[in-house]
Amino acid sequence: MQTIERMIISHPLGSVFGNDGLIACVSACTSCAQTCCACADACLAEPAIDRLRRCIRVNLDCADICVATSRVLSRLSSGDASFAAPLLHACLDACRKCMAECQRHGAEHAHCRLCAEECQHCADACELLLRTAEPPVDEIS
Amino acid sequence: MQTIERMIISHPLGSVFGNDGLIACVSACTSCAQTCCACADACLAEPAIDRLRRCIRVNLDCADICVATSRVLSRLSSGDASFAAPLLHACLDACRKCMAECQRHGAEHAHCRLCAEECQHCADACELLLRTAEPPVDEIS
Amino acid sequence: MQTIERMIISHPLGSVFGNDGLIACVSACTSCAQTCCACADACLAEPAIDRLRRCIRVNLDCADICVATSRVLSRLSSGDASFAAPLLHACLDACRKCMAECQRHGAEHAHCRLCAEECQHCADACELLLRTAEPPVDEIS
Amino acid sequence: MQTIERMIISHPLGSVFGNDGLIACVSACTSCAQTCCACADACLAEPAIDRLRRCIRVNLDCADICVATSRVLSRLSSGDASFAAPLLHACLDACRKCMAECQRHGAEHAHCRLCAEECQHCADACELLLRTAEPPVDEIS
Repeated sequence: MQTIERMIISHPLGSVFGNDGLIACVSACTSCAQTCCACADACLAEPAIDRLRRCIRVNLDCADICVATSRVLSRLSSGDASFAAPLLHACLDACRKCMAECQRHGAEHAHCRLCAEECQHCADACELLLRTAEPPVDEIS
Repeated sequence: MQTIERMIISHPLGSVFGNDGLIACVSACTSCAQTCCACADACLAEPAIDRLRRCIRVNLDCADICVATSRVLSRLSSGDASFAAPLLHACLDACRKCMAECQRHGAEHAHCRLCAEECQHCADACELLLRTAEPPVDEIS
Repeated sequence: MQTIERMIISHPLGSVFGNDGLIACVSACTSCAQTCCACADACLAEPAIDRLRRCIRVNLDCADICVATSRVLSRLSSGDASFAAPLLHACLDACRKCMAECQRHGAEHAHCRLCAEECQHCADACELLLRTAEPPVDEIS
Repeated sequence: MQTIERMIISHPLGSVFGNDGLIACVSACTSCAQTCCACADACLAEPAIDRLRRCIRVNLDCADICVATSRVLSRLSSGDASFAAPLLHACLDACRKCMAECQRHGAEHAHCRLCAEECQHCADACELLLRTAEPPVDEIS
């Protein structure tokens, strides 16, 4: 069992979400943030940097949004999910855009290929949490 | 002229937004993030902490979302505004919720009163940027 | 093989550190940041919050320092390690202080016990990276 | 009077530092973080990006360290300064390195010139806080 999982389970109030979706999403956001940050730096060191300008920028944006989402979700086990829905929408959108950009460079750069996979995984986790949470995240205010 | 303003003007590509709205919003997000962080710590030191639990949590969430928004907007002068709209919506929402919570404690705590004002200011700046940008931020993809 | 590991290996310039120590440290900082953030929120929901004020503050500080360290280290595979040493010292110090504070509450709260373990693990990884890197991190300028 | 100043003054416990040095340093770190983030993006849009690779990386590192320092210092009015000294040393070091790198490009790029000034200002504020605090920050444990 991962630390994230044990931390969420040990929270005194428990989660308004099902634990599984929450754990998967916090974990995906944390990992995606780190990967996007590393991909930006790898792109910055590529000889073909001129074609990677947008990729670097999108990586940095996605990393910042994933960090915020990971942190806000880490506080959601305590019963106040009202911040989650708009941020999950923003994170889902960022991950999809970063994935699309990284995929364009995936054939040349392994780091872009890996980053696209992480973004896809994170987008899926955000979407699942938005859809399956009870009560639906979009209805929590 | 503030540094933020001079930095945005010195960007080689210029802004897809009008500069004024962008400068106001980056500045408001940066200031709101710092204020929410300080308000959380001040609440944490209050004798009446028991009634401030939700306020601390909301402050921390709002601070994290404002930091991300400030950073993403700082990159927008370069022509790619597609990340802005969903994040501005999330930031607007967070600032309104934090403002409402801080207002409940404003009579007792000056830091909550100040924080509510900053959140209101930031929410207004986000809303203005969403509404007045040309092209409309919501239509940028 | 974890994504962090694959990202560092796929960097075009390779690492000035041995990869193993770097991967372990980035991974520990990322995990510790998330755990400290979750521990702060769990403490905030405890009936005995009055005794956990310092723990919450220390958790928040440690989380912020670990996020910064994780990000800076993610950029180190590209040959510029000069930012690492002072930040690793700060991170090591923060993790030790957070561990000590969390240990005081470990008998009552599982989240504090888990967080103390993560902090210990992260402090060890920072110390190892400071000690074993070739060239020694402290001598890189 | 700035919001930062009013927030620190309204803290229930007051500051272990003199307020003036603390306010100046929080303010400088917040502004430097934003400026470095904007400078990285401006560099990323320059035709001469190839010569700005290190500058972008250093800007991103400095921004991350300044964000963490600004947040940790925002919590220092509450009496626990033990996290400050090592982080202030790391921030001072990062600002000096970023200043030196930006100065190399200051003749060509106004954003680098402005960023070097902000880094200098932030380094000075960190150094002053380290030196003049009573008790000396380095002796607080």
